Amino acid sequence: SRSINLAVIPGDGIGQEVVAEGLKVLSAVLPQDVKLETEEYDFGARRYHATGETLTDADLDALKRHDAILLGAIGDPSVPSGVLERGFLLKLRFAFDHHVNLRPSKLLPGVATPLAGEPEIDFVVVREGTEGPYTGNGGTIRKGTEHEVATEVSVNTAFGVERVVRDAFARAQARPRKKLALIHKNNVLTFAGHLWTNVFNKVAEEFPEVTTEYMHVDAATIYLVTQPERFDVIVTDNLFGDIVTDLAAAVSGGIGVAASGNINPSGDFPSMFEPVHGSAPDIAGQGKADPTATVLSVALLLRHLGYEAEAARIDDAVAADLAERTGKPARSTSEIGDALAVRVAG
Amino acid sequence: SRSINLAVIPGDGIGQEVVAEGLKVLSAVLPQDVKLETEEYDFGARRYHATGETLTDADLDALKRHDAILLGAIGDPSVPSGVLERGFLLKLRFAFDHHVNLRPSKLLPGVATPLAGEPEIDFVVVREGTEGPYTGNGGTIRKGTEHEVATEVSVNTAFGVERVVRDAFARAQARPRKKLALIHKNNVLTFAGHLWTNVFNKVAEEFPEVTTEYMHVDAATIYLVTQPERFDVIVTDNLFGDIVTDLAAAVSGGIGVAASGNINPSGDFPSMFEPVHGSAPDIAGQGKADPTATVLSVALLLRHLGYEAEAARIDDAVAADLAERTGKPARSTSEIGDALAVRVAG
Ligand SMILES: CC(C)[C@H](C(=O)O)[C@@H](O)C(=O)O
Ligand SMILES: CC(C)[C@H](C(=O)O)[C@@H](O)C(=O)O
Repeated sequence: SRSINLAVIPGDGIGQEVVAEGLKVLSAVLPQDVKLETEEYDFGARRYHATGETLTDADLDALKRHDAILLGAIGDPSVPSGVLERGFLLKLRFAFDHHVNLRPSKLLPGVATPLAGEPEIDFVVVREGTEGPYTGNGGTIRKGTEHEVATEVSVNTAFGVERVVRDAFARAQARPRKKLALIHKNNVLTFAGHLWTNVFNKVAEEFPEVTTEYMHVDAATIYLVTQPERFDVIVTDNLFGDIVTDLAAAVSGGIGVAASGNINPSGDFPSMFEPVHGSAPDIAGQGKADPTATVLSVALLLRHLGYEAEAARIDDAVAADLAERTGKPARSTSEIGDALAVRVAG
Repeated sequence: SRSINLAVIPGDGIGQEVVAEGLKVLSAVLPQDVKLETEEYDFGARRYHATGETLTDADLDALKRHDAILLGAIGDPSVPSGVLERGFLLKLRFAFDHHVNLRPSKLLPGVATPLAGEPEIDFVVVREGTEGPYTGNGGTIRKGTEHEVATEVSVNTAFGVERVVRDAFARAQARPRKKLALIHKNNVLTFAGHLWTNVFNKVAEEFPEVTTEYMHVDAATIYLVTQPERFDVIVTDNLFGDIVTDLAAAVSGGIGVAASGNINPSGDFPSMFEPVHGSAPDIAGQGKADPTATVLSVALLLRHLGYEAEAARIDDAVAADLAERTGKPARSTSEIGDALAVRVAG
């Protein structure tokens, strides 16, 4: 019989509330014969303040034993900027080699967009997750003085670039439009840019059916607001991916519906799924958070574990729910979760 | 009697056409007693192909003698990516220490925006121009092999950050709303991020009337499409500035109207003014390019040289011209230039 052994990290702020709804929908969608086991982990601001710990080796050992991880949100204004980001979120992505950071953007019917007209938006960003300017390489000398120098080193390897580019080509190949755009800034960041461009062009030869284009990151932000329908699959580095996926989320319905997967395609370590939004401490504990992004992250999780039919049922339920929202009074976090659970079960 | 000794760099593609209109409007707006001298320089793809040169020491010596530089566009698909960007554009910005890269965004009446509703957009980005990931530091080992490693080093100094942050505070102080946002990614790029944040907070103490906020670059892209009216002055690093100013241009009427100044406030070297758009080889030589961004760059140039009244006349002429465009047949590059020249003279 089948089973899913899930690590659950509610985290900070609205993380608790949205993860509860994600699990509700997950339970509702799974067939009877699939045994769902969940173990909750206490990470984030509370634990940091109590123990000074963000993510220990023992934590990593424990997390490693799960099939996948569902994360709500990590971050709180009471913790200095960077501590939980570098000490937990990025540490986990690097430790579990989550090199494919997958972020789909689809503007669903009934969903508001800040863009005029009715753009058709349906693309997926494959963001590199373990290299680039995110490695933490760099340093500071003469800190706090007028002679301070701070560096950040973007590290890019053929190994790291090729595996994520190959993943993106395979995804483009599997989609009807078969288009792939590389986003970088190879006219200025010429060392990293040439590596990315050369690897991209080399792998392209193995995928003759995929139509490719290259675009500078600055130009890409223009296209994302003027011609978002142009995109099918995008592959890009860690930092550019961070930036363009927030913009992509904004134009395709907001971060309330933006899901993401931090994927290790080899399966050597569990992959992690999380909404793109943060912990939103201003609305935490009030039942105001929209759990949709977390529920869509659960769909990515199921798809990753091979439950394609169940993932599709969640996607359909979310689409149907969003299509009926216009003009209705706002619902609470758990009301939205309940409605989605009913739909996926039905 | 007063005089302006201008270096003119038409450059590649539509650069030639738009610069001609910029000069036309400049001549028309200047009072009789101001003597305008221009010297044209041949830089860009043609010269690179003919001589292999992009910008020599002798070129820099010659350019240095001018009061300011007007640039059209540099770049052509026949030249490998990075050669003219690093070899000309960035070399000039670094050689002349253009550390304040000024990019105003104002959505003028009658101008189309990809955003729904009628957002009020009127802000200016102060982009650092001589540091960050643009320094060209970094390198490649094992090039072309499966073991290639390419690095890019972002270099940030207290000296470099403080002068541009101070410039931005002064600009915010001089504007009615007196708001300044720092855009960075200090939760991930903690070395550079802490330097930027600390310097920003320190300089803020000297400007108690200025309201400040900090925003991660990813979140900033969301606000730029959902709440652009939120911004008054933005200060940010070289790469983030490159990205957010293209997005800012897109939402506030497109790169057809986006002007920029590469400014050395000390006056030790001439400042350079250029449209944000590139050389657009696909429409070059057809009289289709909109010279408005170049004309607005001429206004920035005049303002920088102390001709505030003349700069304002150009801004007003452009606003009036744009307001009357809707529903009219498209005009050629020189027709738009003629119309603006008539308005500023009138
Ligand atoms: C919180 C932060 C470390 C993170 C990132 O920059 O990757 C977030 O912005 C994201 O996109 O998941
Ligand atoms: C052409 C390129 C070097 C340049 C930059 O990245 O600064 C351009 O994009 C700009 O914004 O002026």
